[in-house]
Amino acid sequence: MPENTPTAPSPRTSVRRLPARARYDRETLEAILDEGLVCHIGFVADGQPFVIPTTYARVGGQLYLHGSAASRMLKALAQGIPVCVTVTLLDGLVLARSAFHHSMNYRSAVVLGVADAVTDPAEKAAALTAIVEHVVPGRSRDARAGSARELAQTLVLRLALTEASAKVRTGPPLDEEEDLGLACWAGVIPLQLTPLGPLPDPKLAAGVPPPAYVSAYRRPSRPAR
Amino acid sequence: MPENTPTAPSPRTSVRRLPARARYDRETLEAILDEGLVCHIGFVADGQPFVIPTTYARVGGQLYLHGSAASRMLKALAQGIPVCVTVTLLDGLVLARSAFHHSMNYRSAVVLGVADAVTDPAEKAAALTAIVEHVVPGRSRDARAGSARELAQTLVLRLALTEASAKVRTGPPLDEEEDLGLACWAGVIPLQLTPLGPLPDPKLAAGVPPPAYVSAYRRPSRPAR
Repeated sequence: MPENTPTAPSPRTSVRRLPARARYDRETLEAILDEGLVCHIGFVADGQPFVIPTTYARVGGQLYLHGSAASRMLKALAQGIPVCVTVTLLDGLVLARSAFHHSMNYRSAVVLGVADAVTDPAEKAAALTAIVEHVVPGRSRDARAGSARELAQTLVLRLALTEASAKVRTGPPLDEEEDLGLACWAGVIPLQLTPLGPLPDPKLAAGVPPPAYVSAYRRPSRPAR
Repeated sequence: MPENTPTAPSPRTSVRRLPARARYDRETLEAILDEGLVCHIGFVADGQPFVIPTTYARVGGQLYLHGSAASRMLKALAQGIPVCVTVTLLDGLVLARSAFHHSMNYRSAVVLGVADAVTDPAEKAAALTAIVEHVVPGRSRDARAGSARELAQTLVLRLALTEASAKVRTGPPLDEEEDLGLACWAGVIPLQLTPLGPLPDPKLAAGVPPPAYVSAYRRPSRPAR
């Protein structure tokens, strides 16, 4: 799928609950995937769904996942079983006057499909670099690149962003008209994933300062609502 | 299951990858569930796994989920299909000297089982109060409680914490001995979900200040590592 083509909803990714919150445009989907650090991978083994957190990176119209070549989950996914990858960004707590209308402001992306193992060495190396860069932009210039042995120990999976949707809630609470007069505070507590001061490795050699991509680390700014 | 009984790993919740990170004690499990705001629910429909974010609350040895009585997902879960509920707290980014040993500090909880619908009106009301209190402690005193009509529009599910495990990574990067001399910064960027200043609802009546549970909102402090 060309990268700028809007993602058309399939019957499976069409948002049915609160469809006004659905977003099917490519830009929204990519912004969520690019800001998130952790995805939740859903897969089925012996009839039981499992949901496992891991990191990832998006490169064009592909999502890359990685892990140990010994991972049960990754080996199962590499067999070509259906997978769901969900990324959720929590932007705020919505306090309505009624308990019923309490909500959250969030942006979430859901990608369905079948992953396959990346076997081409160049694509595999590029995917691993992309994952490091996704989490800490600038880092791959400084870190020692993977050795042949490390690459062999790592399984990289690719999932095309062909069947995906996003869901977004923003803004203030939506109370019933008759509740607006209640003497109860209502509004939003915005939430942001914030870096604290970096903690040097106790084994760090003396005189190695944190680079700017560490000391000034931040994720893309979120709408403060 | 008595609340202080350790959660014994079942064959399905036994952590196989990096088993040193596994935690099966009740205290760790409950602390993760109680700090998290969003869980990811995994379920299967027509052979396809889906992973959907939502909020929840723990009460004793039960996890409560809720949503619209019209929700496809909740109605499917109420039929008694296998479910996986995962809560992940991201505590930091671990920057090793080698790309290969980059990691994340996190705490995650995975709960497997079959949910059932809460039909007892008192348990249902208590579960909804618990969800409001889980997200914003103190809020349920101020918010208008659900009406009979609102309760009827809400489906509440209960999932026992009988088959669950946690996984925790803390601490600095673990580099290869031969990489320790590299002139590359290594350490941890701690991350914390931080509240920004509350945003009053534009429709808020004049002279209603934010209560302390809003202006001083915070989640349980995380270990800064």
